[in-house]
Amino acid sequence: MKPTLLIACGALVAVTVLGAQSPSRPQPYKVVFDLTSDDPADQAAVLRWLREVASVNPETDMEVVMYARGLALVKTGQTPLVDEVKQAIGRPHVSFKVCEIAMRNQQVDKSQLLPNVAIVPDGIGEIVARQREGWGYIKAVVK
Amino acid sequence: MKPTLLIACGALVAVTVLGAQSPSRPQPYKVVFDLTSDDPADQAAVLRWLREVASVNPETDMEVVMYARGLALVKTGQTPLVDEVKQAIGRPHVSFKVCEIAMRNQQVDKSQLLPNVAIVPDGIGEIVARQREGWGYIKAVVK
Amino acid sequence: MKPTLLIACGALVAVTVLGAQSPSRPQPYKVVFDLTSDDPADQAAVLRWLREVASVNPETDMEVVMYARGLALVKTGQTPLVDEVKQAIGRPHVSFKVCEIAMRNQQVDKSQLLPNVAIVPDGIGEIVARQREGWGYIKAVVK
Repeated sequence: MKPTLLIACGALVAVTVLGAQSPSRPQPYKVVFDLTSDDPADQAAVLRWLREVASVNPETDMEVVMYARGLALVKTGQTPLVDEVKQAIGRPHVSFKVCEIAMRNQQVDKSQLLPNVAIVPDGIGEIVARQREGWGYIKAVVK
Repeated sequence: MKPTLLIACGALVAVTVLGAQSPSRPQPYKVVFDLTSDDPADQAAVLRWLREVASVNPETDMEVVMYARGLALVKTGQTPLVDEVKQAIGRPHVSFKVCEIAMRNQQVDKSQLLPNVAIVPDGIGEIVARQREGWGYIKAVVK
Repeated sequence: MKPTLLIACGALVAVTVLGAQSPSRPQPYKVVFDLTSDDPADQAAVLRWLREVASVNPETDMEVVMYARGLALVKTGQTPLVDEVKQAIGRPHVSFKVCEIAMRNQQVDKSQLLPNVAIVPDGIGEIVARQREGWGYIKAVVK
């Protein structure tokens, strides 16, 4: 075998090995959670999903978009889950975004939000934009 | 500068200016709302979203697909929000569509629907078709 | 007319006829139902949708992904709708999949599931993967 061909074969083997997906290493994905509930069961569920998906698939990008009653999750002094929310916000690949229209409707000021919560001009528009970019969509409601 | 080049430059400037997205003029999008609830809170929420998205993004196409308990929103004599529903139906870029299977199940006749509500043979199929066409999806439920 | 042109015209007619969509034969689609509720109304709704979509569009692929409280639908001895669930699982183009993380959280063993229910490592990941593949998404909740 010629040296050039040997190198080419080696490269092919390397690519194949790197490209192989072991069953214990799932493919990272991107998902947006749509939260419009202030029910503690729904709030606890979305926080649990952020934690659990990260534990089995650490590189997965997750975004929680809150509007309507969903704002309660990130309002200072309102959410009983404050410590867990702060932990979630601090993790890589996780972001929390609040709809500015909903903030105006509910007279919520930026100062009332937990640190590092982002504000988007239109929560529904944000979710739709993510879907257009190929993110998965999950309505965050349990019953 | 030659005249031809001048014209080309002018065209380029025009294209750039027209293509520029000012922060106050968001990109119109398309979104389908999936309504399967007769809870007045959910009904009021979807009507509010239609109004608010239109106010910040007037060219956005919005469609409300109703099946299961969602039909209540557009049944004459059943919805207390009748005036607001009629207003919403009359706006450009907005359509209301009811699932024919759900109508049969619930023995609802076309004559019982508010004017200009469309009937689709399969509400779920309609929603899936929209998603395939690149429309965003929002489950219209608050809690 | 030359023979070659005749053949081409014939082929065009054949393609046109085959490609025509009669109104009574809708295009099959693919849809994933996201079930996180143990409310009998939601359970009954998703079973009804499986049945009804199949009746109007028999080739449509449908998948029910259960996590959080959604597991109740396929747990032996827990679901009152057991006969209907078994019938649904047995139909072509229908699959039921349970999230393994939710099973661990709720200490549910494989032996407690109805026959032919599949287990996926990450229910949310499964749903997102389907969306990426072009399946429609429906949150299976009524109110």
